Amino acid sequence: MCEANIYIINSEPDDENPGELFLEAVDKIVPEGENLWRLTSIFGEQKTLVGRIHSMRLVEHQILFERMEI
Amino acid sequence: MCEANIYIINSEPDDENPGELFLEAVDKIVPEGENLWRLTSIFGEQKTLVGRIHSMRLVEHQILFERMEI
Repeated sequence: MCEANIYIINSEPDDENPGELFLEAVDKIVPEGENLWRLTSIFGEQKTLVGRIHSMRLVEHQILFERMEI
Repeated sequence: MCEANIYIINSEPDDENPGELFLEAVDKIVPEGENLWRLTSIFGEQKTLVGRIHSMRLVEHQILFERMEI
């Protein structure tokens, strides 16, 4: 399956340490407002995240966000 | 492989017709500015897109954008 893991980057991410894992196995990502994202995993778990997309590497199953203050 | 196809939505997308195919088999997506995205496919093809993310369904290999005027 082609879900991705969502990470919050700290400083400059590298391949071995992309950042803090926020939610695993995410299927659906839908923006719900300015820099507000609703994430749904393949297991049905939902979390919201306030941040900006830093980068996506789908083949590596990695989506990196920069967290923002609300 | 877990690449995704990038679509530009027209009106309300449905499962059979998510929109206009913009780039197939995308691996990397990196923002390069406000609503400006650089897409790179697994074949090395690169395109830039001005728009907002409408939704992602990674298990379905679909990422939908709303195109914006520059």
